[in-house]
Amino acid sequence: MIRISILYPNTPGARFDMAYYVTRHMPRSIALLSAHPGFRSVSVEKGLGGGAPDTPPAFTAMCHYEFESVEAFMAAFMPHAAELQGDIPNYTDVAPTIQFNEIVLS
Amino acid sequence: MIRISILYPNTPGARFDMAYYVTRHMPRSIALLSAHPGFRSVSVEKGLGGGAPDTPPAFTAMCHYEFESVEAFMAAFMPHAAELQGDIPNYTDVAPTIQFNEIVLS
Repeated sequence: MIRISILYPNTPGARFDMAYYVTRHMPRSIALLSAHPGFRSVSVEKGLGGGAPDTPPAFTAMCHYEFESVEAFMAAFMPHAAELQGDIPNYTDVAPTIQFNEIVLS
Repeated sequence: MIRISILYPNTPGARFDMAYYVTRHMPRSIALLSAHPGFRSVSVEKGLGGGAPDTPPAFTAMCHYEFESVEAFMAAFMPHAAELQGDIPNYTDVAPTIQFNEIVLS
């Protein structure tokens, strides 16, 4: 099982419209990607704070998609890449950090 | 519901013993923290690569604990903080990025 993490750095001065992200971008992304049989689960998160008290979170928002394999995710995502990536400027001017992970314990 | 993310940056030249982390540190951490009634789930992940082809992952490893609340996590973690944090040098010389998140969609 793999997880794709999309992390939005909490860059000072950057724009991030959490309402748009949570009520428009992510529901559309989930509707499109969850239609693939390799889809397993998704989690969308808002950063609350850092590990030390009264510190800001390193990331404003995170999204984690769990899929059966990297190939399954790519097959689910690629047909919708233009629409989903084209929507990013509607809620942020930050480039997300994206990474593929293997789930080793859960 | 909240998630605590512990992210280990993939710093060039840094040391990270994945075998120790996956077979010793995390099983001990999970045994201790999952005993608390506020515990919900945990995922431990190994970074495979970045979003662009043939790029390294930003993080060597990630761990995500889901708990009922920040208070529940702190109550579960604090009695074992010295043991668990003291074990970190046994597998890495990288300081993890830790953050608290609110789960807004799942």
